[in-house]
Amino acid sequence: MAALPRLHVEDPRLAAEVTVVLDAGRTHYLARVLRLGVGDAVLLFNGEDGEWRARLLALGRRRAELLVEERLRAPRPEPGPTLWFAPPRRVRLEWLVEKAVELGAARLCPVITGRSVVRLPRSDRLRSLAVEAAEQCRRLTVPEIAPARALAERLAAEDPPLLLFGDEAGEGRPLAEALDGRPEPVFLVGPEGGFTPAERAMLRAHPAVLPVGLGPTILRTETAAIYMLAVWRALREVARR
Amino acid sequence: MAALPRLHVEDPRLAAEVTVVLDAGRTHYLARVLRLGVGDAVLLFNGEDGEWRARLLALGRRRAELLVEERLRAPRPEPGPTLWFAPPRRVRLEWLVEKAVELGAARLCPVITGRSVVRLPRSDRLRSLAVEAAEQCRRLTVPEIAPARALAERLAAEDPPLLLFGDEAGEGRPLAEALDGRPEPVFLVGPEGGFTPAERAMLRAHPAVLPVGLGPTILRTETAAIYMLAVWRALREVARR
Repeated sequence: MAALPRLHVEDPRLAAEVTVVLDAGRTHYLARVLRLGVGDAVLLFNGEDGEWRARLLALGRRRAELLVEERLRAPRPEPGPTLWFAPPRRVRLEWLVEKAVELGAARLCPVITGRSVVRLPRSDRLRSLAVEAAEQCRRLTVPEIAPARALAERLAAEDPPLLLFGDEAGEGRPLAEALDGRPEPVFLVGPEGGFTPAERAMLRAHPAVLPVGLGPTILRTETAAIYMLAVWRALREVARR
Repeated sequence: MAALPRLHVEDPRLAAEVTVVLDAGRTHYLARVLRLGVGDAVLLFNGEDGEWRARLLALGRRRAELLVEERLRAPRPEPGPTLWFAPPRRVRLEWLVEKAVELGAARLCPVITGRSVVRLPRSDRLRSLAVEAAEQCRRLTVPEIAPARALAERLAAEDPPLLLFGDEAGEGRPLAEALDGRPEPVFLVGPEGGFTPAERAMLRAHPAVLPVGLGPTILRTETAAIYMLAVWRALREVARR
Protein backbone atom coordinates (compact mmCIF):
# COMPACT_ATOMS: atom_id res chain seq x y z
CA MET A 1 0.00 0.00 0.00
CA ALA A 2 1.58 3.26 -1.11
CA ALA A 3 1.02 6.17 1.26
CA LEU A 4 -1.24 8.96 -0.02
CA PRO A 5 0.52 12.14 -1.15
CA ARG A 6 0.62 14.63 1.66
CA LEU A 7 0.60 18.42 1.29
CA HIS A 8 0.95 21.27 3.71
CA VAL A 9 -1.35 24.19 2.89
CA GLU A 10 -1.04 27.66 4.36
CA ASP A 11 -4.75 28.39 4.26
CA PRO A 12 -7.69 28.12 4.54
CA ARG A 13 -8.81 26.43 7.75
CA LEU A 14 -9.39 22.78 6.94
CA ALA A 15 -12.89 21.43 7.48
CA ALA A 16 -15.27 19.15 5.62
CA GLU A 17 -16.59 20.62 2.32
CA VAL A 18 -13.96 23.34 2.20
CA THR A 19 -12.34 23.89 -1.21
CA VAL A 20 -8.57 24.31 -1.33
CA VAL A 21 -6.90 25.92 -4.34
CA LEU A 22 -3.29 25.00 -5.17
CA ASP A 23 -0.80 27.23 -6.94
CA ALA A 24 1.07 26.38 -10.14
CA GLY A 25 4.02 24.70 -8.39
CA ARG A 26 1.95 22.27 -6.37
CA THR A 27 -0.40 21.67 -9.27
CA HIS A 28 2.58 20.69 -11.37
CA TYR A 29 3.81 18.41 -8.58
CA LEU A 30 0.49 16.56 -8.29
CA ALA A 31 -0.19 16.35 -12.01
CA ARG A 32 3.25 15.81 -13.53
CA VAL A 33 5.42 14.35 -10.78
CA LEU A 34 2.86 12.18 -9.00
CA ARG A 35 0.60 11.87 -12.08
CA LEU A 36 -2.59 12.25 -10.10
CA GLY A 37 -5.91 12.91 -11.80
CA VAL A 38 -9.35 14.25 -10.88
CA GLY A 39 -10.89 12.08 -8.15
CA ASP A 40 -7.55 11.06 -6.59
CA ALA A 41 -7.07 11.51 -2.85
CA VAL A 42 -4.47 13.69 -1.12
CA LEU A 43 -3.78 14.32 2.56
CA LEU A 44 -3.73 17.94 3.73
CA PHE A 45 -2.50 19.59 6.91
CA ASN A 46 -1.98 23.20 7.86
CA GLY A 47 -0.35 23.00 11.28
CA GLU A 48 -3.59 23.74 13.11
CA ASP A 49 -6.45 21.51 12.09
CA GLY A 50 -4.90 18.03 12.08
CA GLU A 51 -4.78 15.93 8.91
CA TRP A 52 -7.58 15.69 6.36
CA ARG A 53 -8.29 13.62 3.29
CA ALA A 54 -9.20 15.68 0.25
CA ARG A 55 -9.99 14.80 -3.34
CA LEU A 56 -8.98 16.48 -6.58
CA LEU A 57 -11.99 18.26 -8.05
CA ALA A 58 -10.27 20.02 -10.90
CA LEU A 59 -6.78 19.96 -12.30
CA GLY A 60 -5.66 22.63 -14.73
CA ARG A 61 -2.23 23.54 -16.00
CA ARG A 62 -1.52 26.10 -13.32
CA ARG A 63 -4.25 25.58 -10.75
CA ALA A 64 -5.85 22.68 -8.94
CA GLU A 65 -8.88 22.47 -6.69
CA LEU A 66 -9.32 20.01 -3.86
CA LEU A 67 -12.45 19.25 -1.89
CA VAL A 68 -11.74 18.50 1.76
CA GLU A 69 -13.63 15.38 2.88
CA GLU A 70 -12.77 13.85 6.21
CA ARG A 71 -10.48 14.44 9.16
CA LEU A 72 -8.13 11.49 9.64
CA ARG A 73 -6.04 12.83 12.53
CA ALA A 74 -7.07 15.32 15.18
CA PRO A 75 -4.84 18.32 15.82
CA ARG A 76 -2.44 17.89 18.70
CA PRO A 77 0.52 19.90 19.94
CA GLU A 78 3.96 18.72 18.80
CA PRO A 79 6.23 20.03 21.54
CA GLY A 80 9.90 19.71 20.80
CA PRO A 81 13.32 21.26 21.14
CA THR A 82 14.34 24.67 19.96
CA LEU A 83 17.61 24.48 18.05
CA TRP A 84 20.00 27.43 17.98
CA PHE A 85 22.67 26.70 15.41
CA ALA A 86 25.48 28.41 13.57
CA PRO A 87 24.46 27.67 9.98
CA PRO A 88 26.82 25.40 8.05
CA ARG A 89 27.33 25.82 4.31
CA ARG A 90 24.57 25.30 1.85
CA VAL A 91 23.95 21.57 1.40
CA ARG A 92 24.80 20.84 5.01
CA LEU A 93 22.38 23.53 6.11
CA GLU A 94 19.65 21.97 3.98
CA TRP A 95 20.33 18.61 5.56
CA LEU A 96 20.26 20.08 9.00
CA VAL A 97 16.84 21.60 8.35
CA GLU A 98 15.41 18.41 6.82
CA LYS A 99 16.67 16.17 9.61
CA ALA A 100 15.69 18.59 12.38
CA VAL A 101 12.12 18.57 11.07
CA GLU A 102 12.05 14.77 10.80
CA LEU A 103 13.39 14.32 14.31
CA GLY A 104 10.86 16.68 15.85
CA ALA A 105 12.40 20.13 16.40
CA ALA A 106 9.78 22.76 17.16
CA ARG A 107 11.81 25.84 16.23
CA LEU A 108 15.01 26.46 14.27
CA CYS A 109 17.02 29.57 15.11
CA PRO A 110 20.13 30.44 13.08
CA VAL A 111 22.70 32.26 15.20
CA ILE A 112 25.50 34.35 13.76
CA THR A 113 28.83 33.78 15.48
CA GLY A 114 32.36 35.10 15.05
CA ARG A 115 33.35 32.14 12.92
CA SER A 116 30.14 31.84 10.93
CA VAL A 117 31.24 32.42 7.36
CA VAL A 118 27.92 31.83 5.75
CA ARG A 119 25.40 33.92 3.96
CA LEU A 120 22.07 32.28 4.62
CA PRO A 121 19.84 31.31 1.73
CA ARG A 122 16.56 33.21 1.47
CA SER A 123 14.29 32.29 4.33
CA ASP A 124 11.61 31.01 1.96
CA ARG A 125 14.09 28.40 0.71
CA LEU A 126 14.60 27.03 4.23
CA ARG A 127 10.90 27.27 4.89
CA SER A 128 10.10 25.18 1.82
CA LEU A 129 12.65 22.55 2.88
CA ALA A 130 10.98 22.38 6.28
CA VAL A 131 7.54 22.06 4.68
CA GLU A 132 8.71 19.22 2.40
CA ALA A 133 10.26 17.37 5.32
CA ALA A 134 7.10 17.79 7.41
CA GLU A 135 4.97 16.49 4.53
CA GLN A 136 7.20 13.49 4.12
CA CYS A 137 7.56 12.47 7.77
CA ARG A 138 3.84 12.93 8.61
CA ARG A 139 4.23 15.67 11.17
CA LEU A 140 1.15 17.79 11.77
CA THR A 141 3.13 21.01 12.17
CA VAL A 142 6.00 22.73 10.39
CA PRO A 143 8.65 24.13 12.72
CA GLU A 144 9.19 27.86 12.69
CA ILE A 145 12.46 29.02 11.16
CA ALA A 146 13.41 32.19 12.98
CA PRO A 147 15.39 35.02 11.36
CA ALA A 148 19.15 34.83 11.93
CA ARG A 149 20.42 36.79 14.93
CA ALA A 150 23.79 37.31 16.55
CA LEU A 151 24.37 34.88 19.40
CA ALA A 152 24.60 37.50 22.15
CA GLU A 153 21.57 39.30 20.80
CA ARG A 154 19.48 36.13 20.74
CA LEU A 155 20.57 35.25 24.27
CA ALA A 156 19.57 38.68 25.52
CA ALA A 157 16.29 38.76 23.61
CA GLU A 158 15.02 35.23 24.23
CA ASP A 159 16.55 34.69 27.63
CA PRO A 160 16.04 30.89 27.71
CA PRO A 161 15.82 29.40 31.21
CA LEU A 162 18.33 26.70 30.16
CA LEU A 163 20.51 26.49 27.06
CA LEU A 164 22.21 23.12 26.47
CA PHE A 165 25.39 24.03 24.67
CA GLY A 166 27.10 21.26 22.66
CA ASP A 167 30.65 21.72 23.85
CA GLU A 168 33.34 20.26 21.61
CA ALA A 169 35.90 20.97 24.31
CA GLY A 170 34.45 17.87 25.94
CA GLU A 171 33.98 19.37 29.36
CA GLY A 172 30.23 19.08 29.68
CA ARG A 173 28.02 16.45 31.24
CA PRO A 174 26.84 13.81 28.78
CA LEU A 175 23.81 15.09 26.89
CA ALA A 176 21.63 12.10 27.81
CA GLU A 177 22.16 12.89 31.48
CA ALA A 178 21.71 16.64 31.16
CA LEU A 179 18.48 16.29 29.16
CA ASP A 180 16.77 14.62 32.07
CA GLY A 181 13.38 14.21 30.45
CA ARG A 182 12.93 17.86 29.45
CA PRO A 183 10.21 17.96 26.77
CA GLU A 184 11.21 21.27 25.20
CA PRO A 185 14.93 21.88 25.67
CA VAL A 186 16.85 24.65 23.92
CA PHE A 187 20.03 23.43 22.19
CA LEU A 188 22.98 25.44 20.95
CA VAL A 189 25.35 24.13 18.29
CA GLY A 190 28.39 26.13 17.23
CA PRO A 191 30.07 26.70 13.87
CA GLU A 192 32.52 24.36 12.14
CA GLY A 193 35.53 26.21 13.56
CA GLY A 194 34.08 26.37 17.08
CA PHE A 195 33.12 29.41 19.09
CA THR A 196 35.64 32.23 19.52
CA PRO A 197 37.33 32.55 22.92
CA ALA A 198 35.16 35.59 23.66
CA GLU A 199 32.00 33.68 22.78
CA ARG A 200 33.08 30.74 24.92
CA ALA A 201 33.75 33.05 27.86
CA MET A 202 30.36 34.69 27.41
CA LEU A 203 28.63 31.29 27.28
CA ARG A 204 30.49 30.00 30.31
CA ALA A 205 29.61 33.07 32.35
CA HIS A 206 25.92 32.94 31.45
CA PRO A 207 23.81 31.42 34.23
CA ALA A 208 21.40 29.67 31.84
CA VAL A 209 24.09 27.94 29.76
CA LEU A 210 24.93 24.31 30.51
CA PRO A 211 27.77 22.75 28.48
CA VAL A 212 27.03 19.18 27.41
CA GLY A 213 29.38 16.60 25.94
CA LEU A 214 28.70 15.12 22.51
CA GLY A 215 31.07 12.17 22.60
CA PRO A 216 34.69 11.28 22.01
CA THR A 217 35.13 12.43 18.40
CA ILE A 218 34.46 15.76 16.73
CA LEU A 219 31.03 16.18 15.15
CA ARG A 220 30.34 18.54 12.29
CA THR A 221 27.79 21.24 13.03
CA GLU A 222 24.89 19.49 11.33
CA THR A 223 25.82 16.16 12.92
CA ALA A 224 25.94 17.73 16.38
CA ALA A 225 22.49 19.23 15.78
CA ILE A 226 21.03 15.94 14.58
CA TYR A 227 22.69 14.11 17.46
CA MET A 228 21.11 16.37 20.08
CA LEU A 229 17.69 16.09 18.51
CA ALA A 230 17.96 12.30 18.13
CA VAL A 231 18.89 11.85 21.77
CA TRP A 232 16.03 14.09 22.88
CA ARG A 233 13.63 12.07 20.73
CA ALA A 234 14.87 8.74 22.06
CA LEU A 235 14.59 9.77 25.70
CA ARG A 236 11.13 11.19 25.11
CA GLU A 237 10.07 7.84 23.64
CA VAL A 238 11.11 6.20 26.88
CA ALA A 239 9.35 8.84 28.99
CA ARG A 240 6.11 8.50 26.98
CA ARG A 241 5.73 4.81 27.84
CA MET B 1 44.60 27.50 16.45
CA ALA B 2 43.74 25.70 13.24
CA ALA B 3 43.87 21.91 13.52
CA LEU B 4 46.65 20.17 11.60
CA PRO B 5 45.63 18.42 8.38
CA ARG B 6 44.93 14.77 9.05
CA LEU B 7 45.42 11.91 6.60
CA HIS B 8 44.64 8.23 6.72
CA VAL B 9 47.33 6.11 5.09
CA GLU B 10 46.96 2.46 4.12
CA ASP B 11 50.56 1.57 4.73
CA PRO B 12 53.27 1.37 5.96
CA ARG B 13 53.24 0.77 9.69
CA LEU B 14 53.66 4.16 11.37
CA ALA B 15 56.72 4.62 13.58
CA ALA B 16 59.31 7.32 14.17
CA GLU B 17 61.68 7.90 11.20
CA VAL B 18 59.47 6.00 8.75
CA THR B 19 58.98 7.68 5.37
CA VAL B 20 55.46 7.77 3.91
CA VAL B 21 54.93 8.35 0.20
CA LEU B 22 51.66 9.91 -0.98
CA ASP B 23 50.01 9.35 -4.36
CA ALA B 24 49.11 12.06 -6.84
CA GLY B 25 45.64 12.71 -5.42
CA ARG B 26 46.77 13.31 -1.88
CA THR B 27 49.81 15.24 -3.04
CA HIS B 28 47.50 17.55 -4.96
CA TYR B 29 45.29 17.91 -1.88
CA LEU B 30 48.18 18.93 0.38
CA ALA B 31 49.92 21.18 -2.14
CA ARG B 32 47.05 22.82 -4.00
CA VAL B 33 44.03 22.63 -1.70
CA LEU B 34 45.73 23.12 1.66
CA ARG B 35 48.74 24.95 0.15
CA LEU B 36 51.23 23.19 2.39
CA GLY B 37 54.95 23.31 1.71
CA VAL B 38 58.08 21.36 2.65
CA GLY B 39 58.51 21.40 6.43
CA ASP B 40 54.80 21.64 7.22
CA ALA B 41 53.28 19.16 9.67
CA VAL B 42 50.52 16.66 8.98
CA LEU B 43 48.83 14.09 11.22
CA LEU B 44 48.78 10.48 10.02
CA PHE B 45 46.82 7.42 11.14
CA ASN B 46 46.40 3.98 9.63
CA GLY B 47 43.83 2.33 11.89
CA GLU B 48 46.44 0.37 13.81
CA ASP B 49 49.24 2.50 15.16
CA GLY B 50 47.46 5.48 16.69
CA GLU B 51 48.05 9.03 15.45
CA TRP B 52 51.44 10.43 14.45
CA ARG B 53 52.84 13.81 13.51
CA ALA B 54 54.78 13.79 10.28
CA ARG B 55 56.51 16.51 8.27
CA LEU B 56 56.65 17.12 4.53
CA LEU B 57 60.12 16.22 3.26
CA ALA B 58 59.51 16.59 -0.44
CA LEU B 59 56.58 17.78 -2.49
CA GLY B 60 56.49 17.12 -6.21
CA ARG B 61 53.69 17.46 -8.74
CA ARG B 62 52.48 13.89 -8.36
CA ARG B 63 54.25 12.58 -5.30
CA ALA B 64 54.97 13.73 -1.76
CA GLU B 65 57.18 12.32 0.97
CA LEU B 66 56.52 12.64 4.67
CA LEU B 67 58.83 11.82 7.53
CA VAL B 68 57.05 10.40 10.56
CA GLU B 69 58.19 12.10 13.76
CA GLU B 70 56.24 11.52 16.94
CA ARG B 71 53.27 9.56 18.16
CA LEU B 72 50.59 11.89 19.53
CA ARG B 73 47.89 9.35 20.37
CA ALA B 74 48.34 5.69 21.26
CA PRO B 75 46.31 3.09 19.38
CA ARG B 76 43.12 2.02 21.12
CA PRO B 77 40.14 -0.02 20.02
CA GLU B 78 37.10 1.90 18.84
CA PRO B 79 34.27 -0.52 19.52
CA GLY B 80 30.95 0.51 18.06
CA PRO B 81 27.75 -0.60 16.42
CA THR B 82 27.44 -2.61 13.25
CA LEU B 83 24.88 -1.05 10.95
CA TRP B 84 22.91 -3.15 8.49
CA PHE B 85 21.04 -0.84 6.17
CA ALA B 86 19.07 -0.90 2.96
CA PRO B 87 21.02 1.67 0.94
CA PRO B 88 19.13 4.84 0.09
CA ARG B 89 19.76 6.70 -3.15
CA ARG B 90 23.07 8.26 -3.93
CA VAL B 91 23.45 11.50 -1.97
CA ARG B 92 21.50 10.10 0.97
CA LEU B 93 23.74 7.04 0.98
CA GLU B 94 26.82 9.27 1.05
CA TRP B 95 25.40 11.16 4.00
CA LEU B 96 24.58 7.97 5.78
CA VAL B 97 28.19 6.80 5.42
CA GLU B 98 29.69 10.13 6.49
CA LYS B 99 27.44 10.47 9.54
CA ALA B 100 27.81 6.82 10.56
CA VAL B 101 31.58 7.25 10.61
CA GLU B 102 31.36 10.48 12.60
CA LEU B 103 29.01 8.96 15.15
CA GLY B 104 31.20 5.92 15.72
CA ALA B 105 29.90 2.95 13.70
CA ALA B 106 32.42 0.12 13.54
CA ARG B 107 31.07 -1.65 10.47
CA LEU B 108 28.65 -0.73 7.68
CA CYS B 109 26.78 -3.54 5.94
CA PRO B 110 24.50 -2.78 2.98
CA VAL B 111 21.60 -5.23 2.81
CA ILE B 112 19.56 -5.82 -0.31
CA THR B 113 15.83 -6.02 0.37
CA GLY B 114 12.73 -6.52 -1.75
CA ARG B 115 12.13 -2.79 -1.97
CA SER B 116 15.74 -1.71 -2.38
CA VAL B 117 15.79 -0.02 -5.76
CA VAL B 118 19.35 1.06 -5.69
CA ARG B 119 22.48 0.16 -7.54
CA LEU B 120 25.31 0.78 -5.11
CA PRO B 121 28.20 3.02 -6.10
CA ARG B 122 31.56 1.34 -6.45
CA SER B 123 32.79 0.20 -3.08
CA ASP B 124 35.94 2.34 -3.35
CA ARG B 125 33.69 5.42 -3.54
CA LEU B 126 32.03 4.54 -0.22
CA ARG B 127 35.39 3.63 1.24
CA SER B 128 36.86 7.01 0.33
CA LEU B 129 33.88 8.77 1.90
CA ALA B 130 34.45 6.79 5.08
CA VAL B 131 38.15 7.65 5.06
CA GLU B 132 37.44 11.37 4.61
CA ALA B 133 34.93 11.35 7.45
CA ALA B 134 37.37 9.51 9.73
CA GLU B 135 40.11 12.02 8.90
CA GLN B 136 37.82 14.90 9.65
CA CYS B 137 36.32 13.67 12.92
CA ARG B 138 39.64 12.45 14.39
CA ARG B 139 38.79 8.79 14.66
CA LEU B 140 41.75 6.43 14.82
CA THR B 141 40.04 3.78 12.69
CA VAL B 142 38.01 3.66 9.49
CA PRO B 143 34.95 1.43 9.70
CA GLU B 144 34.78 -1.51 7.36
CA ILE B 145 32.22 -1.27 4.57
CA ALA B 146 31.08 -4.80 3.87
CA PRO B 147 29.94 -5.98 0.43
CA ALA B 148 26.18 -5.80 -0.12
CA ARG B 149 24.27 -9.00 0.65
CA ALA B 150 20.64 -10.02 0.61
CA LEU B 151 19.03 -9.61 4.02
CA ALA B 152 18.24 -13.31 4.54
CA GLU B 153 21.69 -14.28 3.38
CA ARG B 154 23.40 -11.87 5.77
CA LEU B 155 21.24 -13.08 8.65
CA ALA B 156 22.16 -16.68 7.94
CA ALA B 157 25.84 -15.97 7.39
CA GLU B 158 26.53 -13.58 10.26
CA ASP B 159 24.03 -14.94 12.72
CA PRO B 160 24.15 -11.96 15.12
CA PRO B 161 23.18 -12.74 18.70
CA LEU B 162 20.86 -9.73 18.71
CA LEU B 163 19.67 -7.56 15.83
CA LEU B 164 17.91 -4.33 16.82
CA PHE B 165 15.49 -3.72 13.99
CA GLY B 166 14.19 -0.16 13.55
CA ASP B 167 10.51 -0.86 13.16
CA GLU B 168 8.47 1.88 11.51
CA ALA B 169 5.30 -0.02 12.40
CA GLY B 170 5.90 1.41 15.85
CA GLU B 171 5.51 -1.82 17.74
CA GLY B 172 8.95 -2.13 19.26
CA ARG B 173 10.36 -1.09 22.61
CA PRO B 174 11.94 2.36 22.59
CA LEU B 175 15.49 2.11 21.28
CA ALA B 176 17.01 3.80 24.34
CA GLU B 177 15.50 1.11 26.54
CA ALA B 178 16.40 -1.80 24.28
CA LEU B 179 20.01 -0.67 23.92
CA ASP B 180 20.62 -1.14 27.59
CA GLY B 181 24.31 -0.21 27.56
CA ARG B 182 25.35 -2.65 24.83
CA PRO B 183 28.74 -1.45 23.53
CA GLU B 184 28.57 -3.14 20.12
CA PRO B 185 24.96 -3.56 19.05
CA VAL B 186 23.90 -4.61 15.56
CA PHE B 187 21.26 -2.33 14.01
CA LEU B 188 19.01 -2.96 11.03
CA VAL B 189 17.40 -0.14 9.07
CA GLY B 190 15.02 -0.87 6.22
CA PRO B 191 14.46 0.77 2.83
CA GLU B 192 12.40 3.89 2.14
CA GLY B 193 9.30 1.85 1.27
CA GLY B 194 9.67 -0.43 4.30
CA PHE B 195 10.28 -4.15 4.38
CA THR B 196 8.01 -6.43 2.35
CA PRO B 197 5.44 -8.48 4.29
CA ALA B 198 7.58 -11.60 3.73
CA GLU B 199 10.67 -9.84 5.08
CA ARG B 200 8.73 -8.59 8.08
CA ALA B 201 7.45 -12.08 8.81
CA MET B 202 10.96 -13.48 8.51
CA LEU B 203 12.33 -10.82 10.88
CA ARG B 204 9.54 -11.33 13.40
CA ALA B 205 10.09 -15.06 13.45
CA HIS B 206 13.84 -14.80 13.91
CA PRO B 207 14.90 -15.36 17.53
CA ALA B 208 17.73 -12.80 17.40
CA VAL B 209 15.61 -9.94 16.02
CA LEU B 210 14.24 -7.35 18.43
CA PRO B 211 11.99 -4.64 16.94
CA VAL B 212 12.67 -1.21 18.39
CA GLY B 213 10.62 1.97 18.07
CA LEU B 214 12.12 5.07 16.48
CA GLY B 215 9.57 7.64 17.57
CA PRO B 216 6.21 9.05 16.57
CA THR B 217 6.95 10.22 13.02
CA ILE B 218 8.39 8.41 10.02
CA LEU B 219 12.15 8.66 9.57
CA ARG B 220 13.89 8.32 6.23
CA THR B 221 16.36 5.45 5.98
CA GLU B 222 19.43 7.58 6.53
CA THR B 223 17.76 9.45 9.39
CA ALA B 224 16.79 6.20 11.11
CA ALA B 225 20.39 5.00 10.80
CA ILE B 226 21.82 8.22 12.20
CA TYR B 227 19.22 8.22 14.96
CA MET B 228 20.17 4.72 16.13
CA LEU B 229 23.87 5.52 16.09
CA ALA B 230 23.37 8.84 17.90
CA VAL B 231 21.37 7.20 20.66
CA TRP B 232 23.99 4.48 21.07
CA ARG B 233 26.71 7.13 21.30
CA ALA B 234 24.81 9.19 23.86
CA LEU B 235 24.11 6.23 26.12
CA ARG B 236 27.70 5.10 25.87
CA GLU B 237 28.82 8.56 26.98
CA VAL B 238 26.72 8.14 30.10
CA ALA B 239 28.05 4.62 30.72
CA ARG B 240 31.67 5.76 30.35
CA ARG B 241 31.42 8.25 33.17
